Amino acid sequence: MIEQIDKEYVLQTYARNYVNFKKGINATLFDENEKDYIDFTAGIAVVSVGHGNKRVADAIYKQVSNITHMSNLYAIEPQALLAKKIAQFSNMDIKIFFSNSGAEANEGAIKIARKYGQTQFEKKRYKVITLTHSFHGRTITTVKATGQKAMHTQNFEPYPEGFSYNHSIKDVYDAIDDETAAVMIELVQGEGGVQPLDKKEVQDLANYLKERKILLIVDEVQTGIYRTGEFLASNLYEITPDIVTLAKGLGGGVPIGAVLTTHKDILTYGDHGSTFGGNFLSTTAALEVLDILEETKNSGALDETIIHFQNKLSEVYEKFTNLFTKEVGLGLMRGLRVKDGETLTQIINEAFTQGVLVLKAGKHTLRLLPPLTISKEEINEGFKRLENALSKIK
Amino acid sequence: MIEQIDKEYVLQTYARNYVNFKKGINATLFDENEKDYIDFTAGIAVVSVGHGNKRVADAIYKQVSNITHMSNLYAIEPQALLAKKIAQFSNMDIKIFFSNSGAEANEGAIKIARKYGQTQFEKKRYKVITLTHSFHGRTITTVKATGQKAMHTQNFEPYPEGFSYNHSIKDVYDAIDDETAAVMIELVQGEGGVQPLDKKEVQDLANYLKERKILLIVDEVQTGIYRTGEFLASNLYEITPDIVTLAKGLGGGVPIGAVLTTHKDILTYGDHGSTFGGNFLSTTAALEVLDILEETKNSGALDETIIHFQNKLSEVYEKFTNLFTKEVGLGLMRGLRVKDGETLTQIINEAFTQGVLVLKAGKHTLRLLPPLTISKEEINEGFKRLENALSKIK
Repeated sequence: MIEQIDKEYVLQTYARNYVNFKKGINATLFDENEKDYIDFTAGIAVVSVGHGNKRVADAIYKQVSNITHMSNLYAIEPQALLAKKIAQFSNMDIKIFFSNSGAEANEGAIKIARKYGQTQFEKKRYKVITLTHSFHGRTITTVKATGQKAMHTQNFEPYPEGFSYNHSIKDVYDAIDDETAAVMIELVQGEGGVQPLDKKEVQDLANYLKERKILLIVDEVQTGIYRTGEFLASNLYEITPDIVTLAKGLGGGVPIGAVLTTHKDILTYGDHGSTFGGNFLSTTAALEVLDILEETKNSGALDETIIHFQNKLSEVYEKFTNLFTKEVGLGLMRGLRVKDGETLTQIINEAFTQGVLVLKAGKHTLRLLPPLTISKEEINEGFKRLENALSKIK
Repeated sequence: MIEQIDKEYVLQTYARNYVNFKKGINATLFDENEKDYIDFTAGIAVVSVGHGNKRVADAIYKQVSNITHMSNLYAIEPQALLAKKIAQFSNMDIKIFFSNSGAEANEGAIKIARKYGQTQFEKKRYKVITLTHSFHGRTITTVKATGQKAMHTQNFEPYPEGFSYNHSIKDVYDAIDDETAAVMIELVQGEGGVQPLDKKEVQDLANYLKERKILLIVDEVQTGIYRTGEFLASNLYEITPDIVTLAKGLGGGVPIGAVLTTHKDILTYGDHGSTFGGNFLSTTAALEVLDILEETKNSGALDETIIHFQNKLSEVYEKFTNLFTKEVGLGLMRGLRVKDGETLTQIINEAFTQGVLVLKAGKHTLRLLPPLTISKEEINEGFKRLENALSKIK
């Protein structure tokens, strides 16, 4: 029934699996027939503190019973407190703008970079360089910022000028010219195949850009909020970007995005805005999410989970060398390169049948993004099911 | 304290009033000192069913205790049900895409219009015509779609090509050429001064465009969800646009946007997407909001509220002819044109002191957007306070 209604009333832009999830407890989901699934997707890195998290649910209930939303024309206390907490956790000297999604966060980042480029140099700068396998969003400008050529379909032209793409960090140096305002990268490309960039290469680039006063934008929509084990992947890479964008894991499932920048006065009154961005609901949820994850990190539980998950993944990788060619990723953003795309599709479908949810990234990477609060038992059960699935693949 | 934290950690793009709202009950807000305010803003038309609405809070709590979010790669039952309900309420033969904000909804509308223009004509079309006083969002493309010239600051250049602006509907006809894909309008300009367009003019334009297969996009981000008394302002104007965008009032404060289109197959797999868009939380909240508003409408309560509000507003208008030059607006989207902008600022500040929250629109329009569920007592009290404020203005 859900399939019929969906197909009749929803624009068919997604290739959906029509399972009907009804309930979730941490990393376990239940469909309408009470079949359970171990969730190695977390709604694509969104459900950072697990499904049905009671602390977040209670915080949300308390907030929406009082005030869900008021305009940014008035102060919003949890927004101010969340901004302070993000600044502290990131260990950066920043101010923050709140949006409603990763795409909107990246729009904000590009606006900041352009205003910087047009106002801070004698000759105006407006160009932003990104990487070929990047993904930065689905608005017209972030589609153009996305390096994947297939995304730049003629259907949505004309796109804004000022974006160019390079295959690797090494190529970026040559692409920089006297109109370059910023370089925008993901430290682990999510949609691009769970591929972490080399730490030293990133640090060298960061230094090179800093010397030339060109901005480094790090899109941490997927890598941020402890996904790689540290609050920001930028912390793990020991760099201080000029701009960082966040979204997915920040609200635990409540739509929210954020732009962090060390250029604290670059945007002024009227330059940018959002009706919903940073409202009582989303920032209250995010405050609770960050409290939970801070505790999980400080207790050592997150690091233990990462190690356990990585060990189980390595076991699978070594057991199925007939299917996989490489282990990739960091923290709880992991992948296995599959020998070909067709086999990957088979794996995803069979894993679903066996009761474990897994994702595709790029053309042939099996991608795993469990909730950061996933239990050892859920990890073990999930990998047991994944092995069952893999053993059925020819 | 909130002011200090906000100024230290939040990018200063808003001119905020640093009142600290702690609690809300329907159209009444309470600050940290328990001073109460009648809310004639509803978070800029967002809080459609009032603050602290128990039915919505309970529906949200039940949903987030189960599943807040899962990826659009899997079916989302409340999303499908919400799409069906919007189609029924709008009385249009449509499919829907869910986003996270009005800006994202308008990005979706522009993408649809461009794909339509580039694929449905022999000569490719890509141009979108909007009105001079329009407001369509804060992403780089929707900034450019916005007709207000002051918004097109050089700081954020280059913008995408393909947008042009006309002062009135009458001027639009001359601006249409063989590259025009769509005309995009608000039926009551929100940011543009609460100015409703003429019904006959809009109907004539709709017919003219339909004959030429040019799309009519109606931005109902602010006018939609019963704000003008009908589910859509398009229903009130008795037109069937090709595309309608919704956001503000739909989720009662939960971030959500929607693109409705009669061109049900124009977008296909991979053309568009959103991580958060249409998730369990936002669509469950919206379903409850629409149930509440349908009951409010069908019981006659909404129409009574509109009439009562309008009568009180007319009384004020007639009492203070020294300050106001015109009554404008429709439904619960109302305005009073003030003799000048300076006086308007005084009015807003003094109203706040007297305990009633009111908004500015355009240069000199006092804008009132109460929750649709505001009680007669709250209306009376709000206007009493507004009169107290007005009597203090020189």
